[in-house]
Amino acid sequence: MARKGEEKEFVKELTPKNVDFSQWYVDVIRKTDMADYTTLKGCMVIKPYGYALWENIRDQLDMRIKATGHKNAYFPLFVPESLLTLEAEHVEGFAPEVAWVTHGGNEPLEERLAIRPTSEAIICSIYAKWVQSYRDLPILINQWANVVRWEKVTRLFLRTTEFLWQEGHTCHRTLEEAQAETEKMLGVYKEFAENALAMPVIHGEKTDSEKFAGAQKTYTIEALMADGKALQAGTSHNLGQHFAKVFGIKFLDEDQSEKYVWQTSWGVSTRLVGGVVMTHGDDSGLMLPPVIAPIQAVFVPIYFSSSLEAVNDKIRELGEKLSRFRVELDLRETQTAGWKFNEWEMKGVPLRIEVGPKDIQKKQAVIVRRDTREKIFVPEEQLAEKVELLLKEIQHNLYNRALAFRNEHTTRTDNYEEFKDVLENKKGFIISGWCGSPACEQKVKEETKATIRCIPMEGREPEGAVCVACGKPAPSKVYFARSY
Amino acid sequence: MARKGEEKEFVKELTPKNVDFSQWYVDVIRKTDMADYTTLKGCMVIKPYGYALWENIRDQLDMRIKATGHKNAYFPLFVPESLLTLEAEHVEGFAPEVAWVTHGGNEPLEERLAIRPTSEAIICSIYAKWVQSYRDLPILINQWANVVRWEKVTRLFLRTTEFLWQEGHTCHRTLEEAQAETEKMLGVYKEFAENALAMPVIHGEKTDSEKFAGAQKTYTIEALMADGKALQAGTSHNLGQHFAKVFGIKFLDEDQSEKYVWQTSWGVSTRLVGGVVMTHGDDSGLMLPPVIAPIQAVFVPIYFSSSLEAVNDKIRELGEKLSRFRVELDLRETQTAGWKFNEWEMKGVPLRIEVGPKDIQKKQAVIVRRDTREKIFVPEEQLAEKVELLLKEIQHNLYNRALAFRNEHTTRTDNYEEFKDVLENKKGFIISGWCGSPACEQKVKEETKATIRCIPMEGREPEGAVCVACGKPAPSKVYFARSY
Repeated sequence: MARKGEEKEFVKELTPKNVDFSQWYVDVIRKTDMADYTTLKGCMVIKPYGYALWENIRDQLDMRIKATGHKNAYFPLFVPESLLTLEAEHVEGFAPEVAWVTHGGNEPLEERLAIRPTSEAIICSIYAKWVQSYRDLPILINQWANVVRWEKVTRLFLRTTEFLWQEGHTCHRTLEEAQAETEKMLGVYKEFAENALAMPVIHGEKTDSEKFAGAQKTYTIEALMADGKALQAGTSHNLGQHFAKVFGIKFLDEDQSEKYVWQTSWGVSTRLVGGVVMTHGDDSGLMLPPVIAPIQAVFVPIYFSSSLEAVNDKIRELGEKLSRFRVELDLRETQTAGWKFNEWEMKGVPLRIEVGPKDIQKKQAVIVRRDTREKIFVPEEQLAEKVELLLKEIQHNLYNRALAFRNEHTTRTDNYEEFKDVLENKKGFIISGWCGSPACEQKVKEETKATIRCIPMEGREPEGAVCVACGKPAPSKVYFARSY
Repeated sequence: MARKGEEKEFVKELTPKNVDFSQWYVDVIRKTDMADYTTLKGCMVIKPYGYALWENIRDQLDMRIKATGHKNAYFPLFVPESLLTLEAEHVEGFAPEVAWVTHGGNEPLEERLAIRPTSEAIICSIYAKWVQSYRDLPILINQWANVVRWEKVTRLFLRTTEFLWQEGHTCHRTLEEAQAETEKMLGVYKEFAENALAMPVIHGEKTDSEKFAGAQKTYTIEALMADGKALQAGTSHNLGQHFAKVFGIKFLDEDQSEKYVWQTSWGVSTRLVGGVVMTHGDDSGLMLPPVIAPIQAVFVPIYFSSSLEAVNDKIRELGEKLSRFRVELDLRETQTAGWKFNEWEMKGVPLRIEVGPKDIQKKQAVIVRRDTREKIFVPEEQLAEKVELLLKEIQHNLYNRALAFRNEHTTRTDNYEEFKDVLENKKGFIISGWCGSPACEQKVKEETKATIRCIPMEGREPEGAVCVACGKPAPSKVYFARSY
């Protein structure tokens, strides 16, 4: 068996993380068959392994969206130009990146149609017909859909011309209710990111300059990637009455007066797949959290001489016993065990289960963890129980590792020189005072490429902080970072 | 309680089926909040109740697509004009109904992009890069996506400018394997339609004139709607090597020779929602098969004087016991029980469970079936068991009813006068001999608006049949009908 040699050869195809993180990221995604570029500028194809991961992410979040009382619906792909341009801030934010349909069949259209870059405009125009009375409220609807934004610079999963996402759109009777919904969904995103994706996040409020185009307030969850850059992983917007007023979403309240509704919208996208890759991966490839891994455990047979059928039979038998997990039996005879080890490591499968003739004799299987590479000998009859336990342990371990990494890469300083030094060398989040002026925010961005990721929900109290840019007393501490 | 009166008023809003079937169809869909038109020509919004039904249909089919070895992936929404026009028959079939993107951001595009009307062209261009060796085959991939066809005449769910669907796209080493796949997926569609949608279908082959643009052979499942018109409910295509040759999907075979792959594609769409409505609905509204019903059982409290809290508590308790079913508790105090009965009947919920003070005393609940309106008194402790049994019975009953209807509305004749008379009066399928000539097929279509729905997989043997149009001996019997 040329196992040792193959192992090396196989792995060296991945650029090491610390040599070139961007290249490592692209290598991992392409070599694990998650996605690839197409000839269409900025459009990717999500291959089966990447799509299976997205399906699990989607199902985990969908369950939570439904459990909080929302229902799914589906709205048109097209937004007539006259609707998109109704809300001034919104169109200013999105018009530069819209794809326009000008012909249907062989006829020119009377009005150009935008392919939705986000659906506020089309959905608000429809809600205006649905809402009449306070009894029609709240409207709590979510949509899973594709959207298109004509991006200049693209990157697999993180920023693509077309991407998949969910967008919640709700209407409420009062500002307080809309604000509560905005914060509730931010909380759902945080819990989902941490428990399903094993990705710790800072949740907080965006500054005015980083708000969604048309929102009154934007909230965000911000994750820290392994290269020390932040990733905006989900946003939740209190839209106030901006859209309600231009689209005429009015209701007759109990007191017989006509009022505009208060709205929210919130979304996460296939960008999360990129976030999972960059949070947990290592030089051997992906490392997937068990909750969302397309394959949670893979059986690899260890053959010697004439043992092939006996080993395969045993693996099929054990595979049956693990039917409640997502299990793959890799019985290919065209590849060596060593080659398979590397392949499944690269694909980030949490557990590998090896079975050879000796294991059959001893009525055991050998489990190898992807996260620690620990080798565990397990009696056959305890296999299912042990797999369940290990998957939970790995899920926690990945989260705890990522949290430890974030803690190590979070620096508290109000000193601008130290701030710049951290950005260049240590990287990660920097918690600094900010006076609240857009000028200071802009200065830091221009000089350091770091932006205010959020004013955190927890730990924003100034406690004597001063603005990192101007030195004036700061009303709050904020998180800065360079970001994707 | 003004129950009787309200019941009448509520129901009279639906146009009776036999007065105007088309209007009944639109009434049912709009009044049950399944979908509605938008200001965008031919585009509909699928509302939560309709979308929940689609989600269940999708999940039922997705399970079967995966169980037969296929994996989901996601390909770009856009098809560059140069790719769409490569396969001559394909472009001729689809170009007239394509929506074209000409601008991205504020720039005109160098090449027009079609919004996918179907994805053969974009997917084949990508497969050409994926397939190198016979070891890469078969490719068994499915996509759930939105597609756009610029239709002149549209109808909710049945024909809309944008619709949702799945499209399988596979590559094989041999023609035989591609043919086997084409027929296998036709079989999956038939089993799914019959067991999940309770919709009996005739499966068979399309004539050349009804084939998919670019296919070598097209197979179909054809359902009969309650107005006697056929609905093409799913198609499976053997694409031969047409696309492989123009897109260059080649592989090095084991014998070292370079060969083109053999391909299939197959799809069903949100049209199935319309099929379910038109197969099972009645003058009271929808009647949904339990397997796909968004709500399988609804509890309606019967209140008298001060019994409200006790009844609600009991319903919550019983609801818990039915947690493995999709159950709704309708505890609204703003509506009478009679109003609720009608609403849930119209929404097609298979079982209504009434609980009042007397029922609590007797430790029972009253179940009312949507399909037979039978009233069944069930001891509380047997409720879950009984619900399970009844849901199965209703599923079978809906299928059997639809099958009986189809059998009653299937006529065997080779006589053209009788043929025309049946189309006008009895309606439904007509099994007739066909000589195989496109001219006879065309003549019948022009004179009667009936088309050959398929050459059936079962029962095509001529057994002495002659062509219904020309009287010559027929090589096979075929199914004719007017259709959607």
